[in-house]
Amino acid sequence: MKHCIGIDIGGTTVKLGLFTEEGELLDKWEVPTRKEEGGRYILSDVAASIKKVLADKGIGRESVAGAGMGVPGPVMPDGHVEVCVNLGWRDMNPQQELSRLLDGLLVKSGNDANVAALGEMWQGGGKGYTDIVMVTLGTGVGGGVIIDEKIIAGKHGLGGEIGHIHVRDEEWEHCNCGGVGCVEQIASATGIAREAKRKMAASDVPSSMRKYGDGITAKDVMDEAKAGDALALEVAETVGRYLGMMLAQVALTVDPEMFVIGGGVSRAGQFLIERIEKYYDHYSPISQNKGKIGLAKLGNDAGIYGAARLVLS
Amino acid sequence: MKHCIGIDIGGTTVKLGLFTEEGELLDKWEVPTRKEEGGRYILSDVAASIKKVLADKGIGRESVAGAGMGVPGPVMPDGHVEVCVNLGWRDMNPQQELSRLLDGLLVKSGNDANVAALGEMWQGGGKGYTDIVMVTLGTGVGGGVIIDEKIIAGKHGLGGEIGHIHVRDEEWEHCNCGGVGCVEQIASATGIAREAKRKMAASDVPSSMRKYGDGITAKDVMDEAKAGDALALEVAETVGRYLGMMLAQVALTVDPEMFVIGGGVSRAGQFLIERIEKYYDHYSPISQNKGKIGLAKLGNDAGIYGAARLVLS
Repeated sequence: MKHCIGIDIGGTTVKLGLFTEEGELLDKWEVPTRKEEGGRYILSDVAASIKKVLADKGIGRESVAGAGMGVPGPVMPDGHVEVCVNLGWRDMNPQQELSRLLDGLLVKSGNDANVAALGEMWQGGGKGYTDIVMVTLGTGVGGGVIIDEKIIAGKHGLGGEIGHIHVRDEEWEHCNCGGVGCVEQIASATGIAREAKRKMAASDVPSSMRKYGDGITAKDVMDEAKAGDALALEVAETVGRYLGMMLAQVALTVDPEMFVIGGGVSRAGQFLIERIEKYYDHYSPISQNKGKIGLAKLGNDAGIYGAARLVLS
Repeated sequence: MKHCIGIDIGGTTVKLGLFTEEGELLDKWEVPTRKEEGGRYILSDVAASIKKVLADKGIGRESVAGAGMGVPGPVMPDGHVEVCVNLGWRDMNPQQELSRLLDGLLVKSGNDANVAALGEMWQGGGKGYTDIVMVTLGTGVGGGVIIDEKIIAGKHGLGGEIGHIHVRDEEWEHCNCGGVGCVEQIASATGIAREAKRKMAASDVPSSMRKYGDGITAKDVMDEAKAGDALALEVAETVGRYLGMMLAQVALTVDPEMFVIGGGVSRAGQFLIERIEKYYDHYSPISQNKGKIGLAKLGNDAGIYGAARLVLS
């Protein structure tokens, strides 16, 4: 039996997973992300940890197909990372470096959002499909486009940056990207809370959201919407509208079999999916025969799954 | 030397081209598209014409790698065409059929807009690149997405249907697709003329466009804009704005090396490109390092070039 290793490098911890080539997760563990001195210890920590786990389990080098790695920033096709703000990395090739530290083991790498999408295709909400688009609704809105089982990383690392698609003309605040009216400003956890605060400030309508004050979270908004609060329902509708519009735009570009919705906000579940679907259909009436919308299944493990899958393609 | 044949099936004529595998066009010719009886004679006319040309030139069967065909409608990955309104075809597999008529020659097929994009990548405005998106500004707005030298046709034939991406919320008329606010409603030849008529009707400002009356064309609008007419310049700005927005959305999804702008409206040239670029940058401020925008080069021959190229992949 061959194994593969998935590595998901985050700003606080590095998640690691040991998989079979068939996609079974045999073990997972974490190491802290040491960001000091430009993140120079991250990869040696990772390599030492992998070597120890393989030794402890008595897994020989010959039975490991390779290791894949998700990096929180743009990764060029040859593995080069120009800058990775979250880790302090600059002008390096982490996949070459890690391969060297692992005595020449095959190492592949990709942007973490794209890699998570590959994981959901392999063993998650997109299992059984070859063409999926993942939308991760977290602090921001991330994405990953997988066509024919391969990541569309893009020629400048912008592939799957769908959170920054412009959807709202009447927006006035700026997004982190410098744009105005990105879907991330509305449908991220931060965006949903902001929409709710705007709605409350703009009206005197009683709302069960008011008890949370300025500390209101996306989860609070979704919970109150599910409980029937009119103002919260308006926010959920707005979120569904702009996500549905963005998904329609993406469907008319790459036409996947499935959209997989993940990230913390996706815990709102079918309630959210229904609102997205309504507007997705509205904004792509050209055909009813198009990609379905469903929920992600791997949660925080999507990254290690997808990283391991990188090695197999 | 190996040859390949490109076939571009249109509603009035079928264009054919004989190419070398290196992409040199050796000869091109046309046959009428006989649409009677559900288009049943189209493929036999094409086959007879190809056989005659090859015989006349003394090109033996063994030196022909195959024939590619662009079809004006959605084509499934296996070549199946459910319905092709323009030709009267229904539930058939034209690539299998043509292969049979050509005694088993390799035949591949694809949607005509996607195939034209492949042609521009091979020998046109996108030559030298592997990842391009073509935007054809004709009666409608068509598109084709090429990643890694392959067409992204999509799982339901919607890949590259970028003319129907929603861009304008305040639109009220319906597009042919059933949608409201598609980029085709603004940036197609028809759309540009409509925008100009709306502008003229909505104001009393003198304009050199008024002399054309209701028969004004997209070319008239662009010509008057280049000549400095204020109202026509506003129309050109609107066209650039929504095309730039759509290109930014597509760049944030598949991030090509180049956008190639073709179709009749693209004859406005650099004047149009500059207006698109301005808004493309505005709507994707996340990075300056992204796909360039340029003009198509093959005109009406893009279809036969791309069809021939289909055989080589």
